[in-house]
Amino acid sequence: MAQPNLDPTAADAGDVLGTYLRAQATAFLRALRLHEEGGGTGADGGAAGGAARTLRGAARRISGSLATFRGVTESAWADRLRTELVWLSSTLADEHAYAARLTRLMDALHRLSGSPEVPAPRGTAGALTVGSARAGALLERQLTLARTRAHSATLQALGSSRFHAVADAVAVLASEVPLDSIAARGRVADVLVPLAGMAETRLSAAVAALPPVGGRETAPSPYDADHDAHWHEVRRLLRVHRYAREALGEDVSRPAAAGEALDRHRDAAEAAAASATAARTPRIAPATAYALGVLHADQRHEVEAARLDFHRVWLREPAVTPR
Amino acid sequence: MAQPNLDPTAADAGDVLGTYLRAQATAFLRALRLHEEGGGTGADGGAAGGAARTLRGAARRISGSLATFRGVTESAWADRLRTELVWLSSTLADEHAYAARLTRLMDALHRLSGSPEVPAPRGTAGALTVGSARAGALLERQLTLARTRAHSATLQALGSSRFHAVADAVAVLASEVPLDSIAARGRVADVLVPLAGMAETRLSAAVAALPPVGGRETAPSPYDADHDAHWHEVRRLLRVHRYAREALGEDVSRPAAAGEALDRHRDAAEAAAASATAARTPRIAPATAYALGVLHADQRHEVEAARLDFHRVWLREPAVTPR
Repeated sequence: MAQPNLDPTAADAGDVLGTYLRAQATAFLRALRLHEEGGGTGADGGAAGGAARTLRGAARRISGSLATFRGVTESAWADRLRTELVWLSSTLADEHAYAARLTRLMDALHRLSGSPEVPAPRGTAGALTVGSARAGALLERQLTLARTRAHSATLQALGSSRFHAVADAVAVLASEVPLDSIAARGRVADVLVPLAGMAETRLSAAVAALPPVGGRETAPSPYDADHDAHWHEVRRLLRVHRYAREALGEDVSRPAAAGEALDRHRDAAEAAAASATAARTPRIAPATAYALGVLHADQRHEVEAARLDFHRVWLREPAVTPR
Repeated sequence: MAQPNLDPTAADAGDVLGTYLRAQATAFLRALRLHEEGGGTGADGGAAGGAARTLRGAARRISGSLATFRGVTESAWADRLRTELVWLSSTLADEHAYAARLTRLMDALHRLSGSPEVPAPRGTAGALTVGSARAGALLERQLTLARTRAHSATLQALGSSRFHAVADAVAVLASEVPLDSIAARGRVADVLVPLAGMAETRLSAAVAALPPVGGRETAPSPYDADHDAHWHEVRRLLRVHRYAREALGEDVSRPAAAGEALDRHRDAAEAAAASATAARTPRIAPATAYALGVLHADQRHEVEAARLDFHRVWLREPAVTPR
């Protein structure tokens, strides 16, 4: 099990980083055991879903910390393990992502078609209801297929020798973190804090380079997906920053809240893209395509709203006028 | 021509109201002459468009003032003229409304498909571009047809004996306003100010009864058109309030700005409805229907943005989080 947290002011860099990495490795192994006991049924709710989430989270925390604090560990070992953990967590994430995307799109369709409390939707809502049921069925078919494929890929990955090598490496990490003998003896303030500062600087630079948001003359159209990648990169860098602060025992509620906005940003952007993809299905009815168009625009507006939320939480800027 | 403005503190109610009504009647007659010289070609830009706008504005100002200050005029005469002016201004408004709606939808489609400066739209934008050209052609066909019909209706109205009776009544108004002999001799503060206050009270009550806006839990979905009518009624009452204040010589820049937001609200709501109607055209291609769906959702978000703008301008409430 993880050692109790050490006082960072008294402990050296290796103690603090080692404690964090061992705790995350232990969480990884426990979640892996729970996940295997879940029978790999693909059910994302309940214990198996929780275990898969913890597994992904621990893998991201280990790989993020190994990136930020690379020089404090045996670098060659850290680079290898990090690469493998990035592969693993992205493989594990796919199945969950397809399931979450379907839920998001179904919720949006339900909202767009009017709630069941509202009697007989009038005017435009009626036309939308006709198409939205068929749009929902189409999305369900396409995303369930994608999810099934991702589930097979996950099972294949978890049975591979590549995965067993990762699990073995994490098991080693849980008892003994391979550290750089000189850097690990330095003080936390001299070694870990400046490295965490560099991760924060990279994040700040990426945030400063983001295009403007929300209704300004210079802001890109909310329907323009070309800028999404900049936000996805900020999301990645924010996570690395958050895990570095977590390793130092700092409060991470603000990066966590900002990260939630960027998670919503990513989810909405991918849901919008899924809706556009479904609309390109040959021989669909016009009413289905219409509902998918409304859904696409709706999710792009959610993208915009998530960007505004991120600005508010992270930059503490007041909300600007929505366009 | 209109008399010079009188000092409301010195003048009696009949003087102030009479001056305003005579000025508006004169503007009406001048715009009518310009409109007839324009040859009724239906061109909405340039001098003819400006004359039609002035004609509608003067008709609304006269009918609004006759409603608010009914008791200061000969009531039976005021009621008759008011009914006829409401008929006239709504008839005249249709042609302009269809033209403006088409312009709004074409601008939105252009924005949605990406600006020409952006090279080769990627991903979802590509699919949208395919359908948006066809959606644009469909909307142009439908709204041009509606506009042509409205133009014929306008020409028919302007040639009718009903219209000539209205024009004659306004010509009488331009020289001599039929006033109630007792009320018109009262002081402005005792007669006109309380009546204008009643118009403002009606407006405030309608504003207070509006459903919440923008992202709150209790706010209706932006796609739900059921609440539009409440906003359209506030727009009507705001105009009546504005013209009453104008008659009293007060500054109306704030109601004018709030009215602009509600004009945008109305325009976006009707553009969204036109997009939904176009999507119900039989045998359209799915790509066309998809673009119309995006357009519908886009215009409903413009509806939402206009509501937030109205709140900001009129209630001076801070913008709330967009959903």
